Amino acid sequence: MHPVDLAALPPIEVGARIASMVAGLPATEGGIDALLVSDLTNVRWLTGFTGSSGWAVVTADELVLVTDGRYGRQATQQMAAARADATVPTRVVEGRSAAELQDHIADVVQGRSRLGFESAHVSHRDWVAFGESLVAELVPTVGVVERARRVKTAAEVARIAAACTIADQALAEVAPRLVRPGVSEVAVRDALESRMRELGAAGPSYDTIVATGRRNAPLPHHRPTATAIEDGDTVIIDVGALVDGYHSDMTRTFLVGEPTPLQREVYDVVLAAQRSGVAAVRPGITARELDAACREPIVAAGYGPWFSHGTGHGVGLLIHEDPFVNASGEAVLQVGDVVTVEPGVYRGDLGGVRVEDLVEVTSDGCRVLTRSPKDSPCLPSPPTT
Amino acid sequence: MHPVDLAALPPIEVGARIASMVAGLPATEGGIDALLVSDLTNVRWLTGFTGSSGWAVVTADELVLVTDGRYGRQATQQMAAARADATVPTRVVEGRSAAELQDHIADVVQGRSRLGFESAHVSHRDWVAFGESLVAELVPTVGVVERARRVKTAAEVARIAAACTIADQALAEVAPRLVRPGVSEVAVRDALESRMRELGAAGPSYDTIVATGRRNAPLPHHRPTATAIEDGDTVIIDVGALVDGYHSDMTRTFLVGEPTPLQREVYDVVLAAQRSGVAAVRPGITARELDAACREPIVAAGYGPWFSHGTGHGVGLLIHEDPFVNASGEAVLQVGDVVTVEPGVYRGDLGGVRVEDLVEVTSDGCRVLTRSPKDSPCLPSPPTT
Repeated sequence: MHPVDLAALPPIEVGARIASMVAGLPATEGGIDALLVSDLTNVRWLTGFTGSSGWAVVTADELVLVTDGRYGRQATQQMAAARADATVPTRVVEGRSAAELQDHIADVVQGRSRLGFESAHVSHRDWVAFGESLVAELVPTVGVVERARRVKTAAEVARIAAACTIADQALAEVAPRLVRPGVSEVAVRDALESRMRELGAAGPSYDTIVATGRRNAPLPHHRPTATAIEDGDTVIIDVGALVDGYHSDMTRTFLVGEPTPLQREVYDVVLAAQRSGVAAVRPGITARELDAACREPIVAAGYGPWFSHGTGHGVGLLIHEDPFVNASGEAVLQVGDVVTVEPGVYRGDLGGVRVEDLVEVTSDGCRVLTRSPKDSPCLPSPPTT
Repeated sequence: MHPVDLAALPPIEVGARIASMVAGLPATEGGIDALLVSDLTNVRWLTGFTGSSGWAVVTADELVLVTDGRYGRQATQQMAAARADATVPTRVVEGRSAAELQDHIADVVQGRSRLGFESAHVSHRDWVAFGESLVAELVPTVGVVERARRVKTAAEVARIAAACTIADQALAEVAPRLVRPGVSEVAVRDALESRMRELGAAGPSYDTIVATGRRNAPLPHHRPTATAIEDGDTVIIDVGALVDGYHSDMTRTFLVGEPTPLQREVYDVVLAAQRSGVAAVRPGITARELDAACREPIVAAGYGPWFSHGTGHGVGLLIHEDPFVNASGEAVLQVGDVVTVEPGVYRGDLGGVRVEDLVEVTSDGCRVLTRSPKDSPCLPSPPTT
């Protein structure tokens, strides 16, 4: 019954990641003696710890995870399971209050003169507080862990691919049955999310979008309502699964009933643009160039003003992460990036059309991880009831 | 079938909130000319906008919501639905890039000399960038919107109470059927979340916790696994529903099979502590005093070291928000606060026990919003199969 065998996924091990962070300290911002990792996704990637509160402090000698009383035991178990201490010693310390946690961090970095912190993830308030409680010089860093996290290992891609397969399977079962007149957006959403769980997902990888008709489909991030699908509607379904912390992301657009000439034309334009984008994915292309490859066919067809968002984004432990693919994106794609390609056109007289695949950048281009059919917006004839 | 009529909930209107923010500018941090609200929960509370990207700029003359191309239309619709412009004029402006968004914000605050920002929600990096792009003096503020948000209106409490009722109903149906030997944690979780959706919830209000036995129940924030419930296990179920953005939060502990004397004793101690906590809730008590009222019976019984977290927290548009109820909490409870009371004891030889209710602070004490039975950890005899 299960399309993927989740028990057979290769384990995620983090020892090499920690070792690489330690090795990188001297080259970060002119040299730092310690790095305070506060972003929880970065903490998870680095340690395997999945709790909602914790800081990882990396020094030349060790990694210390500082967390509160709810999580000490869990952190110890998860770091052991992820073989965190394979190369560099690790330990967990618990604090019961914000002050105790600050004290623990101060202990770990005592004697270190330059402490790197994550400038994009530490609030102005916490930065002020750190400055008052720590003797070390605070050195802003940006994206140190994110850059390392961007390139996915085989074990990570296996989880993302499994999540894609689960979403494909759920959509294949649910769409023919429920994408039809009279069924509400929330009913389609509930069926998709429930089926993904049955197929082994930890849950949806984001709030599933089901957006129907001329009022809801033009909202790229519409949340499902009790609105019922009607004949003549475009129905945008944006759905992904979550597998062991890793996300998938896919959009398909259905057309219920006989499409208008405008709906048919826009679907063809968006699909061609999406294919142009996928064909352009390769190591070395910039995010901006990829955005242009995908956007150009839509602009040429005269629908440019209604493609109101970027072409895509990276996907991994976060549903939206580096590299962001848009008209100002300077990132250079590399082997191991996993990105979406998702052009859309949204207009009140049409509804909306978006087609999105998730692809893994490979040495010779890319591998498309989402496999749901996209050739046509039209549904197969519904079963006779 | 539905335990609550969600269509009958009174509307959330935000016009008075915006007016009150405008009125408060002169008294904030010695006087500010504008407040930049960047925390998305605060933006939602203030405007009704639920998108994942947006800034609200409040000046003496207007509220401007700055968002990107994905959300312009949605923001306009949601602000109209929430009657945002009932008193103070409002408008929505869209930007296509980070630079354009910054430019829009700069336009709105042009000529204002002191711009308040949310110090706890603006990253060090963004603060540096604002400092470079804005002429205004940046004035750190903490908790301006959160303080206003803490006291819930009747329309807000109605949503939280509805969410509690949905979780009560789901637990009442699922526990007798599935909290029994051989059923996995994830199966219990899936049944609860699926039933809450059927009952009208937008989803669970957080990742439902089902933690069984001497390995998992001692982890206060355990995530459900394939581990099966066994005779002799304590089973902690921490479950809430989400209704129109508002959360509920409740924990019950079940004991499967014949309890050991230790398990029975600890259950009684935790229940008595929880009742002591609920009885202490009233306007004027400090968070620290409430924590002590709940913690004292556990300490007196000798289990203090294994009550490893605070007594509770506020609940609203966030599952964890002000006021936080713990040993260092200085907040003074007030009418309209909605807080959890959730002592627990976690130990390897026991498993774990936690009992949690969500209560609304009223003029004469509190109203308990979660109604699931808690008198005994023992399940009724399972139905003969």
